[in-house]
Amino acid sequence: MEESDDPGSKDRIQSIERGFAVLLTFDAERTNPSLIEIANATGLSRPAVRRILLTLQHLGYVEPTTGSHWRLTPRVLTIGQHYATSSTIVSVSEPHMSQLVEETQESASLSALDGKEVVYLARVPAKRVLNVTAAAGTRVPAHATSMGRVLLAAASPEFVEDYLLDPGLQPLTPHTITDPDQFRDALDRVREQGWSLVSEERERGLIAVSAPIRDHTGQVVAALSSSSSTGRTSPGHIERYIVPVLTRIAKNISAELGG
Amino acid sequence: MEESDDPGSKDRIQSIERGFAVLLTFDAERTNPSLIEIANATGLSRPAVRRILLTLQHLGYVEPTTGSHWRLTPRVLTIGQHYATSSTIVSVSEPHMSQLVEETQESASLSALDGKEVVYLARVPAKRVLNVTAAAGTRVPAHATSMGRVLLAAASPEFVEDYLLDPGLQPLTPHTITDPDQFRDALDRVREQGWSLVSEERERGLIAVSAPIRDHTGQVVAALSSSSSTGRTSPGHIERYIVPVLTRIAKNISAELGG
Repeated sequence: MEESDDPGSKDRIQSIERGFAVLLTFDAERTNPSLIEIANATGLSRPAVRRILLTLQHLGYVEPTTGSHWRLTPRVLTIGQHYATSSTIVSVSEPHMSQLVEETQESASLSALDGKEVVYLARVPAKRVLNVTAAAGTRVPAHATSMGRVLLAAASPEFVEDYLLDPGLQPLTPHTITDPDQFRDALDRVREQGWSLVSEERERGLIAVSAPIRDHTGQVVAALSSSSSTGRTSPGHIERYIVPVLTRIAKNISAELGG
Repeated sequence: MEESDDPGSKDRIQSIERGFAVLLTFDAERTNPSLIEIANATGLSRPAVRRILLTLQHLGYVEPTTGSHWRLTPRVLTIGQHYATSSTIVSVSEPHMSQLVEETQESASLSALDGKEVVYLARVPAKRVLNVTAAAGTRVPAHATSMGRVLLAAASPEFVEDYLLDPGLQPLTPHTITDPDQFRDALDRVREQGWSLVSEERERGLIAVSAPIRDHTGQVVAALSSSSSTGRTSPGHIERYIVPVLTRIAKNISAELGG
């Protein structure tokens, strides 16, 4: 919220920044916060929070519950939906993702870097009973996922070195690569072969392979991935049967984007 | 944007409302608008739009492309994701929806009214190749869907009469009920039997059945639905095999919500 020592801040509108800060206070830990809890979480005064909540209520994004507590309304989902309908990458990729699921019988995902995290843009599940929470907007650490490796392999060396410092290579399973040199080698391999296979580094039992999507400038703008469970498949099987399909479909998407 | 003749408007913050107006300008028709297009669409001045865009860029929600055009970033998906993680209804319903798909082999959806429209809160698809765009946040007309009928059947008579005036019973297929008396009768039937079956009123080939989800106050807060295609099933089959499963699972969700 501080604006003083930040160049360009005079051109920004503080109350918009505060509005989003209040909106993002609602999460798994604070599903139903009180005005006071929101004030504490954001560092804003109670009168300021009250006016912001009334504004967000007028827009339909929050509603009061009992005892001066508040909750989000489903209208906030509409904001993300605008991304899905306005994004060329998502709309171009959707039919290709269905094709990937059809040919591989495995779930397909599309993701991009947002800051240093990987965010799912779209997902087509293969299995009947799926984890609903792995929906668009879900964020996962970049270093321990095949999608993240593909995106980091295309990032600048400065970006990668900065990632190694913060957040660093946090271990998520005993298999997560945590050694910086080993990680740089893994990115080199991704650049050489044009795809990334990561097994059980993010979560036990989870195996996935990703390939880059390029736009008309040749820049990598997203990763297309196919994920499965180690109980159902093996790295050898993926390399032999999934990688050729995945890289072909990723190239088709890139071609349609002019890449 | 006008505040003068609107009671309570002095407690709201106009720049937050303008911030969201700019953010929602990006859609399927305007995926990549210029500053001038945004100014025209919102009725705001170009300097005002510029400051709002710089603020939204600082927050990571938009980014400039070429020639003073702008686009949304995937970070906007995060806002909707906060709803999914903070909503008790969604988190409680998810495992039950997977159960519904497992037992029926048909897609399951959870939805609620937002204003006069039905908005999908979550969806568990049954088929391998699915329509990715029917994701959370998608909005559909209430009168022509089984979810909407369940939600309207639980709404106040004033709300329903108001709906009949605006937006009214717009026909979406030749099967859409467009006669107000017939529609009121349909809602009566939903109240009596506790579920709603709607065939091909929203879209040819689409058939769905819904049941209400109640919170601890007994109020209907969402609709659980099972949808299929008329080529694969019939109203008789749904009534016999799907309705008992659907209503049982809807009651289980309601029970878990304290309803």
